[in-house]
Amino acid sequence: MKTNLVANCHKAITNYIHHTPVLSSSLINDIVGAELFFKCENFQRAGSYKIRGATNAILNLSEEQKSKGVVTHSSGNFAQALSLAAKSIGIRAYIVMPTSAPQVKMEAVKQYEGDIILCEPTLEAREKTAQDIVDKTGATFIHPSNNTNVIIGQGTAAFELLNKHANLDAIFCPVGGGGLIAGTCLAVNSHQNGCLVYGAEPFEADDAYRSLISGKIETNDTTNTIADGLKTQLGDKNFPIIKEHVSSIIRVTEEDIIEAMQLVWERMKIIIEPSSAVTVAATIKSKLLVKGKKVGIVISGGNVDLAKLPF
Amino acid sequence: MKTNLVANCHKAITNYIHHTPVLSSSLINDIVGAELFFKCENFQRAGSYKIRGATNAILNLSEEQKSKGVVTHSSGNFAQALSLAAKSIGIRAYIVMPTSAPQVKMEAVKQYEGDIILCEPTLEAREKTAQDIVDKTGATFIHPSNNTNVIIGQGTAAFELLNKHANLDAIFCPVGGGGLIAGTCLAVNSHQNGCLVYGAEPFEADDAYRSLISGKIETNDTTNTIADGLKTQLGDKNFPIIKEHVSSIIRVTEEDIIEAMQLVWERMKIIIEPSSAVTVAATIKSKLLVKGKKVGIVISGGNVDLAKLPF
Repeated sequence: MKTNLVANCHKAITNYIHHTPVLSSSLINDIVGAELFFKCENFQRAGSYKIRGATNAILNLSEEQKSKGVVTHSSGNFAQALSLAAKSIGIRAYIVMPTSAPQVKMEAVKQYEGDIILCEPTLEAREKTAQDIVDKTGATFIHPSNNTNVIIGQGTAAFELLNKHANLDAIFCPVGGGGLIAGTCLAVNSHQNGCLVYGAEPFEADDAYRSLISGKIETNDTTNTIADGLKTQLGDKNFPIIKEHVSSIIRVTEEDIIEAMQLVWERMKIIIEPSSAVTVAATIKSKLLVKGKKVGIVISGGNVDLAKLPF
Repeated sequence: MKTNLVANCHKAITNYIHHTPVLSSSLINDIVGAELFFKCENFQRAGSYKIRGATNAILNLSEEQKSKGVVTHSSGNFAQALSLAAKSIGIRAYIVMPTSAPQVKMEAVKQYEGDIILCEPTLEAREKTAQDIVDKTGATFIHPSNNTNVIIGQGTAAFELLNKHANLDAIFCPVGGGGLIAGTCLAVNSHQNGCLVYGAEPFEADDAYRSLISGKIETNDTTNTIADGLKTQLGDKNFPIIKEHVSSIIRVTEEDIIEAMQLVWERMKIIIEPSSAVTVAATIKSKLLVKGKKVGIVISGGNVDLAKLPF
């Protein structure tokens, strides 16, 4: 039963995660004409919600599997999250990163004691390198978003949000690989209050939007977006959940994203990454849809290179 | 009795202010070797603690006085705070600002419906212009920091912090005009748990440090600091309180300030202004003093021009 999956997961991971605060802004409420509740996963350990799914995936391994460690390929938040989750649980994490990954991200992985293995910056090279490590070490591969335990873990952010604000009319999530929004769907579905789930995507990487229309997983030919966490595509584990539960996906321009990011930084005084600004922008754009409603917004993360701000 | 002053003030202003959250960071705890509690006044209405004292000062006026409005001179956070407090209470606020004030600060005052009166950027011009308005309109002058009701109001930030964390060993505050730290002293003194109060100042504007040594109010010949909120000097209303209760004032370099600001932005994902970073830097510098202790840090504000960041 779905109810228990997310709730039970929350119990299991509870000591490994922060129960992040929910903030609000009367100014942004006025702009949107709705009551907004920002679930601040930018304050989460390792700077994003990803630690939830990473922790759950590791905790669901056998002792034998744990002893051999975990491996993933990611140049983003999942790399840090899996490293930190593995460190907290006391196992080894191999992180395959492209040679093109920003220095600041590599430093973060090192700080959490992840073992970095560099590869060429292509999906093929990443997958092959990860597979080589699996073959050589017996470590378990954990996909950043297309893994059932990861999906359930990511759902605990919305679970906490609904525990605090039980009568939300809708929750907005960013859509990258699909793990967060699929987990959110599971949490909302278990909660059974009729809350709707909306996805947010950049026009420049609108594969999920197109996937919902075509009914099959679409890819992006190009991904010219500042929202670097949202460039990936859906997977066979999360797409069926998304297809069943997501009301619609709202797309926003790069200008919308930067404007929303600046609005939140300036008015809420919190640092959110571009992928999270996509969700705020989508909510602002959905004024008519959410007018007078209570709306949750999952602020997915706050990992930003301060030396490279868009404003 | 001092106990009741701050507690009673908190009751009076409670509906006009945010009860800001207290955040912590295990990473910064590790750096300092103490347990730190960040009282996040950067999330306060108008972006700083100043709304507390501004509100209290206005609420203590007679109806006759209120009907004629209030006036202050400030190019910083008090300008916004008094405008917003006056707007909330339904009275008029005249804000004397130097022609050199940043456009972004003038916009904020306008947004809160403060009446801006421009003057030459000298202290004499500011004081004369404010006095002219008092003479002409009968409005009451409210000094940003050297006013007893303002001081008591600012103490409510520490009052809330101590209500949540009753056994703090010390509280660190920035020292600019002296209103916040004097109010903090009153709150701590009423709380009677033996908590110490430390001030934080830039070396480049260390008038309060020197005032504590000489026993009289000192001024700054120059103020070449990024912490623009801390350039002002103490006043006769707050200095006696500071002299009696503050344990010592820790001075930090401009490099310390910028480093602390970046640390908090990057690791805590919250936007703090340079004046608040001074306090964080002073706490980091006081490692030996606070080792193993529970320490409150008043994060005074988050008003930063994102187009002019020092990193």
